[in-house]
Amino acid sequence: MMAVMDASDVVTTPSPLYARHAKTLERALSAIADRGYWSAYPESPSPRVYGETAAAEGEAAFRGYLGADFPLDQPGAGDRVATEASPFGIDLGVRYPHADADTLLAAARAALPGWRAAGPPARVGVCLEILARLHAHIFELANAVHATSGQAFVMAFQAGGAHALDRALEALAYSYAEMTRHPGSARWEKPAGRGEPLTMTKTFHVVPRGVALVVGCNTFPTWNSYPGIFASLATGNPVVIKPHPGAVLPLAITVRYAREVLAEAGFDPNLVQLAAEAPGEGLASTLALRPEVRIIDFTGSTEYGDWLEANARQATVYTEKAGVNTIVVDSTDDFAGMCRNIGFSLTLYSGQMCTTPQNILIPSGGIATDQGWRSFDEVAAGIAGAVGKLTADPARAVELTGAIVNDGVSARLDEVAGLGTVLLASRELAHPAYPDAVVRTPALVRLGAADVAIYGREWFGPISFLVETDSTAHSLEIFRETVTERGALTAAVYATDSTVLDAAEAAAVDAGVHLSCNLTGGVFVNQSAAFSDFHASGANPAANAALTDGAYVAGRFRIVQSRRPG
Amino acid sequence: MMAVMDASDVVTTPSPLYARHAKTLERALSAIADRGYWSAYPESPSPRVYGETAAAEGEAAFRGYLGADFPLDQPGAGDRVATEASPFGIDLGVRYPHADADTLLAAARAALPGWRAAGPPARVGVCLEILARLHAHIFELANAVHATSGQAFVMAFQAGGAHALDRALEALAYSYAEMTRHPGSARWEKPAGRGEPLTMTKTFHVVPRGVALVVGCNTFPTWNSYPGIFASLATGNPVVIKPHPGAVLPLAITVRYAREVLAEAGFDPNLVQLAAEAPGEGLASTLALRPEVRIIDFTGSTEYGDWLEANARQATVYTEKAGVNTIVVDSTDDFAGMCRNIGFSLTLYSGQMCTTPQNILIPSGGIATDQGWRSFDEVAAGIAGAVGKLTADPARAVELTGAIVNDGVSARLDEVAGLGTVLLASRELAHPAYPDAVVRTPALVRLGAADVAIYGREWFGPISFLVETDSTAHSLEIFRETVTERGALTAAVYATDSTVLDAAEAAAVDAGVHLSCNLTGGVFVNQSAAFSDFHASGANPAANAALTDGAYVAGRFRIVQSRRPG
Repeated sequence: MMAVMDASDVVTTPSPLYARHAKTLERALSAIADRGYWSAYPESPSPRVYGETAAAEGEAAFRGYLGADFPLDQPGAGDRVATEASPFGIDLGVRYPHADADTLLAAARAALPGWRAAGPPARVGVCLEILARLHAHIFELANAVHATSGQAFVMAFQAGGAHALDRALEALAYSYAEMTRHPGSARWEKPAGRGEPLTMTKTFHVVPRGVALVVGCNTFPTWNSYPGIFASLATGNPVVIKPHPGAVLPLAITVRYAREVLAEAGFDPNLVQLAAEAPGEGLASTLALRPEVRIIDFTGSTEYGDWLEANARQATVYTEKAGVNTIVVDSTDDFAGMCRNIGFSLTLYSGQMCTTPQNILIPSGGIATDQGWRSFDEVAAGIAGAVGKLTADPARAVELTGAIVNDGVSARLDEVAGLGTVLLASRELAHPAYPDAVVRTPALVRLGAADVAIYGREWFGPISFLVETDSTAHSLEIFRETVTERGALTAAVYATDSTVLDAAEAAAVDAGVHLSCNLTGGVFVNQSAAFSDFHASGANPAANAALTDGAYVAGRFRIVQSRRPG
Repeated sequence: MMAVMDASDVVTTPSPLYARHAKTLERALSAIADRGYWSAYPESPSPRVYGETAAAEGEAAFRGYLGADFPLDQPGAGDRVATEASPFGIDLGVRYPHADADTLLAAARAALPGWRAAGPPARVGVCLEILARLHAHIFELANAVHATSGQAFVMAFQAGGAHALDRALEALAYSYAEMTRHPGSARWEKPAGRGEPLTMTKTFHVVPRGVALVVGCNTFPTWNSYPGIFASLATGNPVVIKPHPGAVLPLAITVRYAREVLAEAGFDPNLVQLAAEAPGEGLASTLALRPEVRIIDFTGSTEYGDWLEANARQATVYTEKAGVNTIVVDSTDDFAGMCRNIGFSLTLYSGQMCTTPQNILIPSGGIATDQGWRSFDEVAAGIAGAVGKLTADPARAVELTGAIVNDGVSARLDEVAGLGTVLLASRELAHPAYPDAVVRTPALVRLGAADVAIYGREWFGPISFLVETDSTAHSLEIFRETVTERGALTAAVYATDSTVLDAAEAAAVDAGVHLSCNLTGGVFVNQSAAFSDFHASGANPAANAALTDGAYVAGRFRIVQSRRPG
């Protein structure tokens, strides 16, 4: 006789967590099908939304982690690592458990069978509960993102909290839809002439790929990691999260609450583990090459993303890398609004978003506007003026710029003077609350169309180029060529003529980049809305995947079928 | 002013071909969601189904191609290649146009923008019309598959005609569903406190990846190629089809009618091109490494599939390779039916299906059956007897076995005597209709569990091993290990106890292979039904994709969005 199998993934036991969050999932499923506006997690940190005590409690919880061992009971040798240095100069000193690849992967693999056997609804129910738990701790998360990324607090709350949770829920909805597009079982009855029909009962098992590795970045530790974490987890894969050494805390908090929920629901908490590393350890590369790792999500440099794609051959690799985000300026019926909108996009988080525009292409002869013809210099002055206005008052400016995330950005800023005519020099601002914070305002540099060696690559940080072109047609040619070759996450166009907008849209389709047209109000090119905007396209070198679509989730699991007569 | 863009992929003009086939598509969409029985193309070549003249007309059309220039007006240097040698000895001598990679890829790329701009419904409409056109020529296709693959005629009609068309339609339905899971446009309206809401109109463009390459195989030139061809074409990618040099005609006929329909519908016929090659030219490798080629579908050897995956890094590569298909025999309540069913599976197309069982694992102590306990030798004799009965009369046998596809299979058959105890020797049969055909019946060889160096790799052709194991638990262990390491496209189990069936199913889920249980009637382990059975899983080394699921189509296109205020 055979031993009884430990669990069947056919039988999906009723899941109380799935039932608890079924309405949220249902709404998310309709949102991803409609792609209109929806958000599940309020983005305003106001006490009217979150209650009078939430902010203080969250900050206290954050403070409680500082200078202490982070509470995480995952397998490991018992030693600790502390690698974070806050861009604001906040003394963090959080000590994280340290584990080697063998330990992490063995624990992850051991956790897989029970999670696979739980089936899609139970897994998605647990993931939804994890999101609810994280949402209950959103101020704690926001403080951690703020302190480690250098984002101003409100931005950290929104991008690192509410919007990250929305993106996670979006990924969950796609994962659920993909896993359930086929029934769990089906009856097959084939007519056989005058004889009895042939009949089979078929069972379709959702089978995860293996261990999933998520490699986080310094600037958006949660927003860029959550879709991969939750898409992999929901589809049955244990997840090992390797945070950027400079932004561990937001993901450590995430792992903490994920493990808490998993354990409460009766699952192995090692389905979610933190892979904090010592300086120079290179743990991401060690993990990425292990045969157990079958899925990798990465956000960061083109160099490392390309390395992962080339070397982690046993895994499906999803990357978001660098690019040259571009604005084509042809004409506008709201010159002031255009300058204000572009100025805001350049200033927000000191241009340290992967979506910040870098190249602004303007005809050398100027453009038509509602204020009459504006020369190249006048357009440049308009944008520079908008940036200047937003950064004039340091106390207000820092709530927009945040702090410079690392020395590399500062060093790059120091280089710009040698590149071309500096139209707006970067200034250092004193942060009223954090005397050690490095705050620097955007630099604007004028280049010629021939300077493609400069503007044809990414200058990450508050560095943008105003590039003189012969005409809008020339601008579109440069746009098409640079984005096709170097990639981009965002593009924008300003034009009053629909023919020009259509031509820009055709160029964007050719280059495979998302386009925003005539943004002059409260929507900015560097912001994408979960459930409606796709982030990255996977159609140019800046990323090989989009957040979030069918392709992003479909490869994270396989169907294995069994058929029996009857 | 800008030049007006040549075409917009936003505007999808009404498509008469889509309208013509909308009901078929609708039925296919519900079939892929239900995964019950459905077929769009009758598998019986009977005159009652296809009319009295269809068979003769199809054969005449096939004969018309022989010894002549194949009528295909695609770009090329004007020279011709003829590389086919029929396993039945039919004198083919069809001369195909020959083109180099530059010519093919330039033509394909030039065809892309107009096809992309047509939009999903128009493209799917054209593809459905191509299927209808091919169906109208199904006897012509069946003769071509029969003559080039060595399949008996009825099998060629079914697998190479009706079932191939069903698989193509299945891939089309998935492609349509995936492209339309997001709307073509959406309005986004975000509340903004007491102010006016923020509003944007968003357009979502389906953007193909680039040129798609399909590399066909000798044994199933249409069945294994159609899903990739139609999934890539429907999602907007021009397709270059590189047939196996031994089975060009079925795909040349396919290309002919596809081009005919494309041209009639006003599209560039170079969206589908044949890449016939001269002996030793290595055109597949040349094409596979070109940057324009972004998608590759391949069926064939593990060696070449692995080479493609490792080297065609610019492309998404879908491969179906070799494996060790396995049957675990534990017990049965229909010994005669089991032997008959296994015998049929081994004999069909002389074991030259990628799904033919190779390793039959039987406890050395024998098994319980409805006829009492049967020793290992008795089980082996039962299976050998079933094969013997099916192959006793050459005239009837050849309608099941067809012919040996190439000398490699014959050479392998000649090796088996040295491997272990030959329980059933392969016999050469004279084909009544084709004196030059090489027809060989299945060989059965007894091996020990320790002979994993032999049974642990694929022996393509009518070669199966009856492997003595200690117990069913031991069989399952061997099954799990060999399939995990070497892959498999199919697996089967015979057991009367549901505990054993469940244990086999658990092992199949672990190894990532589809399992058939207790097949004793008219369903065979080597046959998979479109719309219901998944072919290959992508979860073991035998294939990295399944025919057909969401993952198979989702990566063939990307979404590029544009958003405008209002």
